[in-house]
Parts: sequence; structure tokens; C-alpha cells
Amino acid sequence: MRIKQFLLCIFAVLLWSVAYSAQYPMSEATETCIDCHSEVTPGIVSDWKASVHAHITPAQALKKDKLSREISSSHIPKKLSKVVVGCAECHTMSPNSHRDTFEHNGFKVHVVVTPKDCAVCHKVEEEQYSKNLMSHAYKNLMANPVYHSLLDSVDGVQTFDGKTLIYAKPDAKTMADSCLYCHGTKVEVKGFKVRETSMGEMKFPVLIGWPNNGVGRINPDGSMGSCASCHTRHRFSIAMARKPATCAECHKGPDVPAYKVYLVSKHGNIYYSEGYKWNFKHVPWVVGKDFKAPTCAVCHVSLIVDENGNVIANRTHQMNDRSPYRIFGLIYAHPHPKSPDTTIIKNKAGLPLPTELTGEPVPKFLIDKKEMKVRRSKMEKVCMACHSTGWVKGQFARFEKSIETTNKMTLAATQILLKAWNEGVAKGLSQGDSIFNEAIEKMWVEQWLFYANSVRFASAMAGADYGAFANGRWYLSKNLQQMLDWLNFQLASKSKK
Amino acid sequence: MRIKQFLLCIFAVLLWSVAYSAQYPMSEATETCIDCHSEVTPGIVSDWKASVHAHITPAQALKKDKLSREISSSHIPKKLSKVVVGCAECHTMSPNSHRDTFEHNGFKVHVVVTPKDCAVCHKVEEEQYSKNLMSHAYKNLMANPVYHSLLDSVDGVQTFDGKTLIYAKPDAKTMADSCLYCHGTKVEVKGFKVRETSMGEMKFPVLIGWPNNGVGRINPDGSMGSCASCHTRHRFSIAMARKPATCAECHKGPDVPAYKVYLVSKHGNIYYSEGYKWNFKHVPWVVGKDFKAPTCAVCHVSLIVDENGNVIANRTHQMNDRSPYRIFGLIYAHPHPKSPDTTIIKNKAGLPLPTELTGEPVPKFLIDKKEMKVRRSKMEKVCMACHSTGWVKGQFARFEKSIETTNKMTLAATQILLKAWNEGVAKGLSQGDSIFNEAIEKMWVEQWLFYANSVRFASAMAGADYGAFANGRWYLSKNLQQMLDWLNFQLASKSKK
Amino acid sequence: MRIKQFLLCIFAVLLWSVAYSAQYPMSEATETCIDCHSEVTPGIVSDWKASVHAHITPAQALKKDKLSREISSSHIPKKLSKVVVGCAECHTMSPNSHRDTFEHNGFKVHVVVTPKDCAVCHKVEEEQYSKNLMSHAYKNLMANPVYHSLLDSVDGVQTFDGKTLIYAKPDAKTMADSCLYCHGTKVEVKGFKVRETSMGEMKFPVLIGWPNNGVGRINPDGSMGSCASCHTRHRFSIAMARKPATCAECHKGPDVPAYKVYLVSKHGNIYYSEGYKWNFKHVPWVVGKDFKAPTCAVCHVSLIVDENGNVIANRTHQMNDRSPYRIFGLIYAHPHPKSPDTTIIKNKAGLPLPTELTGEPVPKFLIDKKEMKVRRSKMEKVCMACHSTGWVKGQFARFEKSIETTNKMTLAATQILLKAWNEGVAKGLSQGDSIFNEAIEKMWVEQWLFYANSVRFASAMAGADYGAFANGRWYLSKNLQQMLDWLNFQLASKSKK
Repeated sequence: MRIKQFLLCIFAVLLWSVAYSAQYPMSEATETCIDCHSEVTPGIVSDWKASVHAHITPAQALKKDKLSREISSSHIPKKLSKVVVGCAECHTMSPNSHRDTFEHNGFKVHVVVTPKDCAVCHKVEEEQYSKNLMSHAYKNLMANPVYHSLLDSVDGVQTFDGKTLIYAKPDAKTMADSCLYCHGTKVEVKGFKVRETSMGEMKFPVLIGWPNNGVGRINPDGSMGSCASCHTRHRFSIAMARKPATCAECHKGPDVPAYKVYLVSKHGNIYYSEGYKWNFKHVPWVVGKDFKAPTCAVCHVSLIVDENGNVIANRTHQMNDRSPYRIFGLIYAHPHPKSPDTTIIKNKAGLPLPTELTGEPVPKFLIDKKEMKVRRSKMEKVCMACHSTGWVKGQFARFEKSIETTNKMTLAATQILLKAWNEGVAKGLSQGDSIFNEAIEKMWVEQWLFYANSVRFASAMAGADYGAFANGRWYLSKNLQQMLDWLNFQLASKSKK
Repeated sequence: MRIKQFLLCIFAVLLWSVAYSAQYPMSEATETCIDCHSEVTPGIVSDWKASVHAHITPAQALKKDKLSREISSSHIPKKLSKVVVGCAECHTMSPNSHRDTFEHNGFKVHVVVTPKDCAVCHKVEEEQYSKNLMSHAYKNLMANPVYHSLLDSVDGVQTFDGKTLIYAKPDAKTMADSCLYCHGTKVEVKGFKVRETSMGEMKFPVLIGWPNNGVGRINPDGSMGSCASCHTRHRFSIAMARKPATCAECHKGPDVPAYKVYLVSKHGNIYYSEGYKWNFKHVPWVVGKDFKAPTCAVCHVSLIVDENGNVIANRTHQMNDRSPYRIFGLIYAHPHPKSPDTTIIKNKAGLPLPTELTGEPVPKFLIDKKEMKVRRSKMEKVCMACHSTGWVKGQFARFEKSIETTNKMTLAATQILLKAWNEGVAKGLSQGDSIFNEAIEKMWVEQWLFYANSVRFASAMAGADYGAFANGRWYLSKNLQQMLDWLNFQLASKSKK
Repeated sequence: MRIKQFLLCIFAVLLWSVAYSAQYPMSEATETCIDCHSEVTPGIVSDWKASVHAHITPAQALKKDKLSREISSSHIPKKLSKVVVGCAECHTMSPNSHRDTFEHNGFKVHVVVTPKDCAVCHKVEEEQYSKNLMSHAYKNLMANPVYHSLLDSVDGVQTFDGKTLIYAKPDAKTMADSCLYCHGTKVEVKGFKVRETSMGEMKFPVLIGWPNNGVGRINPDGSMGSCASCHTRHRFSIAMARKPATCAECHKGPDVPAYKVYLVSKHGNIYYSEGYKWNFKHVPWVVGKDFKAPTCAVCHVSLIVDENGNVIANRTHQMNDRSPYRIFGLIYAHPHPKSPDTTIIKNKAGLPLPTELTGEPVPKFLIDKKEMKVRRSKMEKVCMACHSTGWVKGQFARFEKSIETTNKMTLAATQILLKAWNEGVAKGLSQGDSIFNEAIEKMWVEQWLFYANSVRFASAMAGADYGAFANGRWYLSKNLQQMLDWLNFQLASKSKK
């Protein structure tokens, strides 16, 4: 850079600093953080500078009318109220409750910012999120013996001893890279370590289960979840969280193809064709004006209003309170569980599952018809911002039919599997064996985890081929045939012995 | 909202209304619709307000020069000519011919707007579209016994009776959610029903097969097709229809991976990298200026000109008149059928297929070499707007080679299947059995419906890995091996009995 | 077009021409090219006009400070220095060394512009690229007997003789459409041919292996590679090359799912949510300012600086000098080869592979631990522009664990395959048979080429489900079971004979 340009640049930066700090008062602590970190980790400082957190103080935010407000706590501690929400505001909050707190240039800093920290300003969202199944995603997976056994069969390294395959227990790093990437890890402090840095020697906590932004992360302060799953550090952008690419991080695989289905739906088409022109920042979010077709957030999360400010849907971070059915992740689709903690569920057979192995739901732990109706109404109200009643009823009738038919197709698969177990050509529950480690068991898993899920998502969101040839009904049907072929071959081999 | 803001808002809306109605005269009827529907379904009213339909009258449109004109009828009924194309203009058109017409606040409204309605202004497009295979997509699927049997094997729910799998006939809702989502449903009026609404009691038609926007939808006025498949209600946007996400709604699955192939092609790369800066609205569409790489529409549909206004390709809604070959959906690639109604086709074996089971085309029903050459020239002219003759000839030579080789790979699969039928280890045509319900038959279907199609699309659009590992030649080859393994196993089992 | 509009248009074009040519002096030769080609191939002329090449002369480019400069040669031939880089500058460069040079309106033009041509201004990039494995992609595939045999098994057409499947050798067009689309073809001049054109009779070279833009293309001047693989003709845009859609052309299939993994990573989410607002043109590329999350280019190619102009990473067209491990394309992940020419490699068993069949690397041909550390540090420095040391170390630890576990899962598969060979139920190396043409061999290939690769990419780039259910660990595990089932069935059949 030539000198003139350089000086101009410096001058501009200085000018900006002065103007900026008048308008957006930073705490002294945050200023200290930024002094070094704009050198050390320039990317995130720049992210933060582009964030809403850097451009408003809680006191200013509280002055907005209720619908436009992005903070939900009515009371903000005085110390935080008059400064923008900077590094120190979050990373030095309640130092004693964070086990990863460490001395850092005179501050008590913690690495992992948690929902409890965010709740200081976003109390309602944190409370709602604690009722969200996602906040329990670590525990619901790891403390459920059935699911954990599925995880073992996926993540465990196998060795071949010349005759059989031997599964090792999965190691922590592999789980963190696989299932727990989305479900969340347990972040623990293993001690502290001094390390040479560009600023000299410094002491840092040694974390295991880190990095991670999974939705059900267990944090060093004991809280569950990570707001950064969707509101990416350090922008914490509502705009980004409202875009489908955010949900796609965890909802794109064959087990939960929501994003793929959305992409080929009419709604997705509209979004991909012109979404880049919409206003994703505006709060409240105005249907028809700010956005022209729903993204994931419109239907499942956001506060939606019409142009006259009438509320169509209230913001929810519980998310499933607009959905009567839980359509993925379990063997059969079923009414949503009452509690986000699904480890409390037990079916008649004593298994920690919300349905019997043959599909009947376990009513004690699931929402009732009345609550299902309430949730469905909330969703329908969103649909009806653009669609007629007849359209919406027709759509829901098909969706419920697809729940019925996919459950039946799963039942057929289960019956083939049960026969395999009964006839002794595979080892199942009564033999005390994993139900996920044999060929026919893996086919059975794909029946519900991939194909039935795909059909239901396609039905819910009008995703065309994901209900037909793209992991849809074609595979539901083909897989049954393959399971039966496998069974018949095993039975034939056995009878010949 | 605080009162001042609210009043300002009201004032602004009023001002807009006055200014708007002077410039864009609405019919009284449409004004009446909007009065309620901006409350009841704000999303679609807002869509319409953003549409070209809301910003031009047919009379104004007719004044444009021919190349720039977006309407093709030379005569517009007087009543429609001087008002913008609003709700009432389409939804109250020819009320007597629409079986879904109902009394609605003093108007005779029909729910399902059809190509016949659109043809009032877009006559040429409607005529062209009636020659498009897509307009016959419902009938061509449902009235062809072979295809219908494929549909049954995909959509029919199966039950396991302890020994075999029993297929039920697919129900209407499942078909509407699956194959007919794209092919189109048959929309029928089952009666009328009074319902409580936010505006009091009202009577509405009860429609079956609704909602649907499939390309070959059978409408309550007897017409076939839905312009809204691509020109999404209620924007009817030419810009959106020109973007690949529109075609992706139905052309993305493993059976027709056009969109996926496009995404990884050089053309797709250019579009995804910078398409958001292009002019998708301009008519006629100027190569190099409005757009820098072809989307689906450029090659298959749109009116394309160079910067001097020379026509490179005329607009076509027949679409296949720039394509000599039909490369997907059937067992073998073959010259395009002459008629969009493919139910009239019969091969030597008496099957309603455009080729024999062993691949020879059935010339009587297919375009001849001369017509193929004409169509190829049209497409080449589009290519040559950017590419040299040598480039284009090389590209076409590879494409025709891939048609030849994929047909051969399908023939090998068919021969294995025929052997299975002949040896009695599977039941086929001569046994009067479905040819889609046994394991080896399903493998055979994947050979042509997934893998051969994928290779041909990859070849046609330069889609790299879709011709190799992504459902491409790798699977064509692997699947043959698996079919043979299955056959040999069955033969071995049989000989032991 | 009405006459007034037309005249205005002509006038505007003339005015533009005069203004343009003063600012951006074209060579006379290029002007001659454009005179015809803006008629004949308007799309590419318009592309070029929008390119940087059309808006700067090498002399002007050399005046930029070093970090901002996009040309790397310090000396530009005088003749080229004062004109913009137009058609003639590239297509008539060193006519004698290009075998595809032909007489064209008084100029000696060649069709295929090569890295040697580009090197006149971009010398450093060309030198770096010659060390890039990609520049050797044609030879490394075609001259390696093992890989060539894999290619044969994918691209060869098979026929069924009633008993077995017979592989034909793949033809050139099929290879060009499949593997060589990305690897590059060998472009050869087969003679010259006179053809009628819109400008009268003209002579053109007849090229085989054309069209192609593969990364290791063998050019008619003997050079290897194509800069246009990423810097698309005729825009040669750095902006486009920096976007992931460019890399996706070849890095999206199941064998190398980099793009898919990126799409669902946090980085990809940020890019897809707001990348359209970033500055992809700026050189040097400023982290946090020009872009907010890495694209492929940020980590693997681009010159990256912070807002103060400190270099975080130097530009590299060798690309693998920021990566210690080669994680795809081979049977086991291993340290990068020293030379881009991998045909020189031989393992202990005499195979041209960088590891033994059982996974041990062949150190002689691979970079050592010291070099691996250097490369890892370069990559870490990029990560640390946004992430803390603890974060980055944790990420790398997981990545190395996934290399270890996927190699183990591949070893288990190899051991099953070896047993199949040893027991005589499949034919392998010692029988002199292809190791890619039997069912169990194809399963084995998918173990490393699809599933292990997918897991490693997911681990490297935090791609969630691609390490779990989307071609990830689920399939690594399921595939082993299927291989063992196949083996046991074959052994059982054999013992019964």
C-alpha cells in the first residue's frame, strides 16, 4: 500500500473509532479484549463488529415496542444495560459458575458461553429452548440404552479376526465428530495448561469435548444447549438463523432430509430463486413484505405478523409447539413427547421408546389429541397466511395419510425382523444382542430411519421426489423385498444344515 | 406499534392506493377481492402486488414490440383489456366451464385457474404447451398399464403375512403425494360445503386431488396442465421460471437428476457463482448481457437474442422441439415421440412402450431422422452463442455415444432379467405378473431409471461425476454384477431342490 | 425494436466503444477478432468484456503494490505490455509450439490456450500448479495400471453372453465424459478440415479429446493442465474461482464429497446465508472484511491478509502445501506424495500405490513428519484467524483420529477381501485378475472410495452427517457386514459342492 493510502486508511479508522464509540459505548473490559483480539483473531472481532450486539445497548433495545424487540428479559443488570454486548459481557458473566473460567489479563474469562449467559437478556427464549427436545439431545441419545446401542453400531471401529467382525466401543473423538457433532458433546475441564502465545506465556483451560456447537451440548456450567448452534458466533445473526442453510447443518442427511426436501419444494424454489432480495433482519417478520415464502424458521420458530401488525405466529424456541407429530428419529412416527427429557419414557416391553416395537404409541408420555389439535392449529394459521382452508386441509390429510402408510411399511419390516429373530437366523432382544449389528437389522433401521422419514418430510413440506424415488417410497418397498430375500436365504441355508 | 407510527403507516397506504390505482387500474371485482383477502391471505395478495400482472394492462402489454411482448394473443376481450390482471380476471373467467365455480360474495369464482384461463392472453404458450409431453403427464402415467404397474409397486402399501409381502392398491392421497405431485392429479369436485370463516358462513367446493400444481393436472374444466407448475402463483414470475430451482422441483431425483447435474456443470457453477447479479426479467433475454451462462430455460424454453436483437432461439413451451432424444423415464433412450399422448404407442410385443424390451425403437410413433436433425440444430444454435462448432460437435458426439452405451448396459440388464424369467426364478410378463415387484426386477429398474438416466444427463450437460461415481457408470456396472449374482444364487438354490 | 430506440442503441454502443478504447487499449489483432466474434459467438465476447483482462494492461497491473497484484511475472514482453489481454494475446501466443495452430483470417490462431500461454503473465502460479497433483491428473490415472484398471471397470461397456458379463475396453468418448472430464483428456490434432461457416469457407483443426477443461489435460503444446478448470473462460474470474461452486464441479461426488460436506458445515452455512454480499474480487483477500467465513479457496489457495495487511497465508496454486494428508482417491489416507507425478511410486508388493494393501505408507515417496508439520502449521494459521488455539488443536486431533479409524475400517474390509481371494471365491492379484470386477471387490472399493473418504472430509471440514449417516460411518459399518455376508454365503455354497 502506498503511504498516502495507508495514512488515509489509519485516519479513517480513527475517525470511525471515535464516532462509533460515542454511539455504541463499549465497556472498558470489552475494549481491552478487542485491543489484542483484533490482532490475534481478527475474523471474529470483525464478525462481532458486524453484529447487532455491537450496535445496540440493552437499554436501547428495551425501548423498542414489544413486537420489534429482540430481547425478552424485562430487567437487565445495570452494569450491562448501558454498554453494547461485547466480548467481556458474555465471556466474563458469572465467572464462578463456569468451570472453564480462567485468569486472562486480569479478567476471569470463560471459553464456553452458554444459554444461561444468553438468558440474561434473552430469558424467554432460553426458557422455551429448555422445553425443546434439542436442548436434551445429548442426554436423550447417550442415556437411552437403545439409542446408545445404535450409536455404538455406527461409531465403533470394527476389526476382522478371520471369522467375525468385532466392534470396539466408540472413542470420544469419533463420537464428537459423528453423532455428537449435532447432538452436542459434554464439554469438561481437564485442567489448565500454560502455553506460549504471540502475547507471551498464558494459561488456558484444557477442554475435552471441545470444539462443539451441538444443540444439546452439556456445558461447563451444567447448562444444556448452545445458542450458537443456530445463532452463529460471533454474529449471533437472526437473519442467518432464519435461513434454511442454518437448519441444514444438522437436518440434511438421509435420517432427516428436511433441507433437501425444502430445496425441491415450491417454497424452497421461491426462496432459492429470490430469497437473496428479502429482508431477513426485520423484527417482527412481515409475511409478503419481508419474505415471500416460508423458510424453516417461518413455520417452526419465528414471530410472524401481517402488514398491519397482526400476529400470525408467536416466536417459539420450543419449536415443536407448532407440530403435533414427531416424524423422525424413532421407529414409528408418533405424537410428540410431553417432556423434552425422553429418557423417562418406557413402553410396555420395558424399552425406552415412545411406541411399542409394533407401533402402538405409549400415551402416558405423549401429548394427547387436544394438545395435538392446538399445535396443528398454530401451524395451520401460518399456512393460511397464503393458502385457503381447502388447500391446507388437503395438505394435512395427505400428511397424516403418509404417517399412517409409512408406519405400516415399518411394521411390515419389523415383522420380517421379528421372524428372523424368532427363527434364530438373527439375534435380537431376547438373546440380549444389539438390535443394530446384523445385516437384516441394518436394513430394518434404514426402513424407518431413512426411507419412512424421507417420505414423511416430503409429505409435510411437499418435497416431490423425496416421497417417491429419492429415498422415498421406492426404497421403502424395495427394502422390504430385500429383507425378505435375506430372511428366505438364511432360512433355506439353515434347513439344509 | 405506537400511534404516530400507525397513523403514518395508514397514511402511506392510502397514498400508495391512490397513486397506484391511477397508474394500474384494477377492475372493481378485483378491488373487492383484495379488500378481504389482504386480511385473509395477505401473502398471496402481496405476491400478486409484486407481479407483472399487477403492473400492466393487456392493452399496454400489446403496445410493446413483438420480441419484448409477454402476451401472445393478438386479441384481448375488451372487458379485460384496460385493467390489470387481478384476482377476478382469472378466478371468474368463463364460470360455466369450470365445475369448481361457486358463489362467493356475489361473484362466480373458481378455485383452480387453468391453462384455458391463461390462454386468453397467452394463447401461443398454451397451444405449445398442449404439445408438451408434460401436459399429458397424468394420463401418460395413469392410462399406461406398464407405468401404472410401476406406480403400484412404488406407492402400494405392503403387509407381511408371515411368508410373503402383499401389495395393496395405492390410495389417492399417497399417489398425490408421490408420483402425481409432479405428474399432476385429477382435480374433481365432490360437492359443496358450508364452512364457518372469519367473514361468517360461506360455501366452498370440496375438491379431491387438491392441492396440486403438477404439470399434467386434469382440471375441473377438462383442460390438462398447470401454468403454475413453473410460473408460481400468484407472482407468475418469468424470472423465477427461468431459474433452475423451478425445474428442480421435479427434476432432481435419481430418476431425473437434471438439476444435480446442472449444479456441478460449468454452466451451473457460473450461475451459482454470479447468477444473482443477472437480469432474469428482461424480455427478450439477451445472451451475454442479461445472463452469462445458460439455465434450463435458456436451452429448452426461452426466447434468446443477441445484443443486436438477432433471434438465437424462439420461445417454446413445447420444450422438446429443441431435443432430438428422450433420455429419461423409459427403459431405453430413443427419439422423441411424435405425439405428446404416449398412450397410443404400442411396440411389436404389444406393450405400450416406445421401444421393444430389447431396445429397438418403434419408428411409427417416434420422430424421424429429419426431425431429429431439425431439433438438434435448434439446440446447437443456442450452444453456438458461446461455443465454437468444433466444441459443440464434440459435445454432441459424446452425448450420442453415451446414449448408445447406456442402452447397451440396459440391454445387458434386460438379458439377465429375461433369463431369470425364462428359468422360472422370477415371474414376468409371460406369467402375467408385475415386472416391478421382485428383487431382480427392482434392480433392473434402477439400471435404466436411475443409472442410465444419470449418465445421459451428465453427458448432455457436462455433469462430471454424475456420469462416473454419482449414480453413474460405477453403478451401471456394479448393478449388473449384483443382478447376475442374484440370478446365480437363485439358480443354484433351485438346482439343489 | 422501434427505429428511435434502435438508433439510440447504436449511438450508445459507438460512444461506449470510443470511451472504452481510450481507457482500455486493445491490440489491432484483438479488435479484428472481436469484429466478427461479437456476431458469431456473442456470449464469450461479452464474457471477456466483463473480465479483468479487458480492463487492465499488464503494464498497469505491474504498477500495483505486490500484495494487490494479480500478475506474478516481473517481465512482460513489450508487445503485450501496453494492450489489454484480448483474444489475440492468448490465442496467437507462440504459434509454433501449438500443434493446433491454424491460419485464420491472416492470424496464426490456436484453439487450446494452455498454462504455458498464461505463464507469460502468471509465471509463479503456473510453476506452483506444475507441483499440484491436479496438473498430473491425466497421467497419474492413465499410466498407473491399478487406477487404469479401476477406470476400465467403471467405463467399459459390458455384454451378457448368457452366463457371464464381458467387459469391453472403454472408448475414448466415454472416458472423456466420465473420469477424464475432471482428470483431463489428451487433446490431439487429427488433421485440418475445411468447413462452411457464416463467414464463408474456413479451415479448422480437427481435435480429439475436445472439448475438455480437466485439471490435468494434456495440451497440444505438450503442457499439462488447464487454468480454465477454475478460472472459467473467458472471464478468468478470480471471484468465481474463490467460490465453492467452482470446486464443486469435480469435488462433489461420493468419491470426493468436499462440496456437500462444506454445504452443511458452519462455514458453508455462513457462505450460503450471506456470501452473496461479500467481496470476492478484492486482492489481497481480507479476512473478516471481504469475507466472513472460509470458502475452499480461503483454506487451500488464496492469499489471505488481515485488515492491517499482515499476511495470514500466501497464495498457492500447489494447493497441497497447506495439507499434510492426502485423504481421498487412494485405499488408505496417507502423507502427501513428494512428487506430483505419482506414477513413480512403488510399494513393497510392487504395486504403484503409496501404501501397502494393508495400509502401511511407503515412506520413500511421501513427505516426512517435518514437512507434514510445516503444512499443518500453514493451515492452522488460517484457522486461527478466527479460532483459538484450543479450538484448532481439538479440531485437528479429531481429524487425525478419523484418519486412523477410517484406515482401520478399510483394513478390515481388505482382510475380508484377502480371505475371499485366498479361499478362491473371488479372483484377485495372484490370479492376475482385475481387483475391481467382482461383487466383493466393488464393495471393498466403496469402503474406501466412498465411505472412508466421506468420513474424512466430514471430519476435516466439520460436515456433520457426512461422518454419520450420509455415506459416513453408518455405511462403513454396514458395508463390512455385507462383505462378510457375501463371503460367508460363497464359502457355504462352495463347501456344499
